[in-house]
Amino acid sequence: MSWKDNTRKVTPYVPGEQPKAGDVVKLNTNENPYPPAPGVADALRKLADDYAIMRKYPDTNATSLVDALSEFYNVPSDNIFVGVGSDDVLAMSFLTFFDSDRPVLFPDITYSFYEVWAETFRIPYKTVALKDDFTIDIKDYEQLNGGVVIANPNAPTSICLDIDSVEKIISSNKDSVVIIDEAYIDFGGVSALPLIDKYDNLLVVQTFSKSRSMAGARIGVAFGSPDIIASLKAVKFSINSYTMSHDSIRIGAAAASLNDRSYFTETVDRIINTRTEATRRLTEMGFEVLESSTNFLFAKHKTHKAVDIFNGLRDQNIYVRYFDKPRINDHLRITIGTPEEMDKLYSALEEILNR
Amino acid sequence: MSWKDNTRKVTPYVPGEQPKAGDVVKLNTNENPYPPAPGVADALRKLADDYAIMRKYPDTNATSLVDALSEFYNVPSDNIFVGVGSDDVLAMSFLTFFDSDRPVLFPDITYSFYEVWAETFRIPYKTVALKDDFTIDIKDYEQLNGGVVIANPNAPTSICLDIDSVEKIISSNKDSVVIIDEAYIDFGGVSALPLIDKYDNLLVVQTFSKSRSMAGARIGVAFGSPDIIASLKAVKFSINSYTMSHDSIRIGAAAASLNDRSYFTETVDRIINTRTEATRRLTEMGFEVLESSTNFLFAKHKTHKAVDIFNGLRDQNIYVRYFDKPRINDHLRITIGTPEEMDKLYSALEEILNR
Repeated sequence: MSWKDNTRKVTPYVPGEQPKAGDVVKLNTNENPYPPAPGVADALRKLADDYAIMRKYPDTNATSLVDALSEFYNVPSDNIFVGVGSDDVLAMSFLTFFDSDRPVLFPDITYSFYEVWAETFRIPYKTVALKDDFTIDIKDYEQLNGGVVIANPNAPTSICLDIDSVEKIISSNKDSVVIIDEAYIDFGGVSALPLIDKYDNLLVVQTFSKSRSMAGARIGVAFGSPDIIASLKAVKFSINSYTMSHDSIRIGAAAASLNDRSYFTETVDRIINTRTEATRRLTEMGFEVLESSTNFLFAKHKTHKAVDIFNGLRDQNIYVRYFDKPRINDHLRITIGTPEEMDKLYSALEEILNR
Repeated sequence: MSWKDNTRKVTPYVPGEQPKAGDVVKLNTNENPYPPAPGVADALRKLADDYAIMRKYPDTNATSLVDALSEFYNVPSDNIFVGVGSDDVLAMSFLTFFDSDRPVLFPDITYSFYEVWAETFRIPYKTVALKDDFTIDIKDYEQLNGGVVIANPNAPTSICLDIDSVEKIISSNKDSVVIIDEAYIDFGGVSALPLIDKYDNLLVVQTFSKSRSMAGARIGVAFGSPDIIASLKAVKFSINSYTMSHDSIRIGAAAASLNDRSYFTETVDRIINTRTEATRRLTEMGFEVLESSTNFLFAKHKTHKAVDIFNGLRDQNIYVRYFDKPRINDHLRITIGTPEEMDKLYSALEEILNR
């Protein structure tokens, strides 16, 4: 007998490497290559002046951030929940809404944290195989379940499900909460956000980590009916009432980001243009590239093994993501960087493929 | 049938009011009345210059903060865990270490979140009554259990248990994890930190929210054996790998706080002096004041009802904490403010008590 017998055993999620070396091209964690909106720096400077306010607990409801989101998305405040990155929002949502004996459904190839949360919280789940082309058959989600989670666009496939299909999954599961995880939605695809007024079982989750270049700030958002948001807040406040650090730190910075609409549109457009060019270049080099609605590509080479290309790039300090998992171990996930970073990738790939 | 049937129902913790009015004396949430160390402002200013780094995910291990803690406390890094405030650290610890059918033990009068976490995570628990004078009888913790949590000094009682008694609780429960929650330890009492080398079932939890004036930054710390810390990290990373926002934001600020030892000692001493004076003044006014090792007092008036004093103070924009709970509903918890804030409290109390 030991305290270890009472300790929960888990297999944690393994995030992409964060290499510390200086001269690295980092295309492995779907970070945005551009800095946050310049207003973020001003918000941080203001905080430095007001740093004494840090002695106080933050506002549990993060009201100023919720208000800025409410204005940006034109959605009332009681439809909005914020957390420490979309991982926090999603983990809290799993704990809150998947409290049944029936299995929660999600694709076999998707964000690998879904499985980790289900295991950690001991939620029964069942993965549903994507079709061979990695698209979703919405009929697969018409079976009895305790909840549904769909990443849309999906990761690591980069593929987006059309909004009518998304709505069918929501409408055919009114007795379950359906989470649509839209981490990458700003890079393509149509958001399910407007559907929250129509379906009170829908939770739409977004993040500041990708299109807003604020992965380091840890800000995630959920939109849903007032009922669903109230349930989520009750559980969240039962675990940690004050997870968002002080208004003036992240929240002020986040509001500054929301207020600069033109910077947002401009950097997202830039990434989409680079993505178009990258798809063209990789296809020329013999890759099959899935049609991406995200800030990354999911690509398979016709003749070369993914793991060999991955290692070859790594030797040249270029990091992409390789998943040693069934069905996708012939693919690479490549984050869209700046045009300069992508040029380094193309050169390295040409060299590796012509060895 | 509805999605609501699958939704977890909880009774969330109710934090102290955060009044928004301007001219308020706020002695209700045990915040530090002094600003964080001045180096914190410099760290934030530096971040404003380097804000572009926010586009990247933070270091999951918060290495720079762990290193600063390692140096300050002279404890190796693999004995250290950090989280989003001690609430995050404690919630993760409950989930990790209290995974048995036997009840977790904690006092009937203590930090009310312990009960909320046990309920939320469905951990069996049993509260153990403090003695009539609100002290702990360590024999009560010699019964079969699935874990033990002791806030030391305790809140809201402000009373500290001597370190020999703390050690006896740890040594008599080697088959359980014993959590010593030392949120207030810097204001008095002896920390159990040196015991982590002797007992691998001990987890010592501290926070930057009180003695370091950084409640708004949300930084909590746990110290324990490498085994216990590794178990905690595994569960934490299974829920949210990136809860600490970017190094340069909070972590840099936290390190700046650790590095300024003289500011820390000076402000803690100032609070202790104000506490001594407050104990004297309140006693003169007819309060029975428990001997405090914290930055607050727990006091009961000989003739006046606590709730009446609470409401009288509130009418004058002075906020203290009143708990409408058995055994303590005749007490008030009063945070130690600046001498100026305390003078306002004394004047208001004199007026209320002489009505």
